[in-house]
Amino acid sequence: MQQAIAILDSGVGGLTVAKEVMRQLPMENILYFGDTARAPYGPRDSEEVLEFTRQIVDYLLQFGPKMIVIACNTATAIALHKIRSMVSIPVVGVIYPGARAAIKSTRNGTIGVIGTENTIRSGAYQQALQSINPSIRVVSLACPRLVPLVENRMFRSEEAKLVVEQSLRPMRQSDMDCLILGCTHYPYLSEAISDVVGPDVSLISSADETAREISAILYHRGQLAENGDLPVHRFFCSGNTGLFQAIAQEWLGEEMKISPVVWQMTRL
Amino acid sequence: MQQAIAILDSGVGGLTVAKEVMRQLPMENILYFGDTARAPYGPRDSEEVLEFTRQIVDYLLQFGPKMIVIACNTATAIALHKIRSMVSIPVVGVIYPGARAAIKSTRNGTIGVIGTENTIRSGAYQQALQSINPSIRVVSLACPRLVPLVENRMFRSEEAKLVVEQSLRPMRQSDMDCLILGCTHYPYLSEAISDVVGPDVSLISSADETAREISAILYHRGQLAENGDLPVHRFFCSGNTGLFQAIAQEWLGEEMKISPVVWQMTRL
Repeated sequence: MQQAIAILDSGVGGLTVAKEVMRQLPMENILYFGDTARAPYGPRDSEEVLEFTRQIVDYLLQFGPKMIVIACNTATAIALHKIRSMVSIPVVGVIYPGARAAIKSTRNGTIGVIGTENTIRSGAYQQALQSINPSIRVVSLACPRLVPLVENRMFRSEEAKLVVEQSLRPMRQSDMDCLILGCTHYPYLSEAISDVVGPDVSLISSADETAREISAILYHRGQLAENGDLPVHRFFCSGNTGLFQAIAQEWLGEEMKISPVVWQMTRL
Repeated sequence: MQQAIAILDSGVGGLTVAKEVMRQLPMENILYFGDTARAPYGPRDSEEVLEFTRQIVDYLLQFGPKMIVIACNTATAIALHKIRSMVSIPVVGVIYPGARAAIKSTRNGTIGVIGTENTIRSGAYQQALQSINPSIRVVSLACPRLVPLVENRMFRSEEAKLVVEQSLRPMRQSDMDCLILGCTHYPYLSEAISDVVGPDVSLISSADETAREISAILYHRGQLAENGDLPVHRFFCSGNTGLFQAIAQEWLGEEMKISPVVWQMTRL
């Protein structure tokens, strides 16, 4: 069996990355771990997020993956460098791919970022953007109320629209021409977010961009999957399998139907 | 002095890549070589394109660059793998970055590609696209009349519009939802191309996408330039410096003004 891409998240947010990997790289085996029992990571302290991430990486490594994807902005901001120094395979985070896409997209040099408290407090996007181009202006905003909406499968509700509108209000006066969805849960809410910021602001999904960067890195390492057996997609979660599976099936939709899927509840 | 990114092309086409590298990675030193004395490469035989590419790479290697970018689709299709096996630094072509961006962009799975005779005849895009996703449909068209318009600085002329319209006519019936500009000269003509294919077809510039992929690869190798001295951009061409410099200054515009520039005519 071909080596898999291992994707981890605090819960269902990383499924936005998994979906794009399934769409952009349909021949790849995927292992997904959602730490739903302990989500959200946004308000947790750094030590804890690092420890949880380490546990999941250890668990996933037993399957011999070819790459680890930290599909959670909070965990990327806190744990990426430490995980990289621990393992010998490539470890991809979700912050630089989004930063690079925003730098490609922006015309006026002002980039917005929304994320969890931890991600915004870490300054990780500002640091990534300005390490590439010091003259980029960054407007950041923590939106702590969005992740729970998604984890509780309320992302299509009227309440979700209202919470998004209230959360993003402080950004309406900004002159950003693109906005990084700096949390992998946010693509679930992208329609509502787009309605608030308007059509002139491009939304950058760190999920879409990370999938593309995974493709680039595997290609340059000569490790893209070759055409052969149907790929297998295995999903693990640490909490309620029913809710996780319901969200995954609703979100992944078409991408889910093309290949065998395995569900498993796993306590770490 | 920080190591440079070395970019080569048959002529001025690769300046579309250089411009995007200057914009997306404004701290990087750049070496550019345009083989204007021998452009275009599109109709040349493969042995010759390979030999010319080798000569330019040898020339650029004396400056100790950190990366070689073959910013010419024809040379990428013919020479990328051989050049890669010759040198120890990363060699980036322009075909896979465009292919990856098209795969990310397409919703209906039908992707158009335009390029030189050599690029289209090589089937390189079709091979790249389908090696990633075998179910992608590819519609290809050689447009041999476009490069000479650009090399002769006629890209803003009425004649250019007419030639683009005539060249692309066979693609109008296609149901592609994105079109790869599979020649680095084509972004000079992107307005005219967009007018012909219409607003529902996204244009994918291999130039923009390659710049982004350069950023990703250098980042993952820990080789992005650090903030420090103003970067230096050195331009070499093998033919008429006056015409080359006029096109470069017109095309690069703002990006050109931020840092010292060196021009040099060099016979290989």
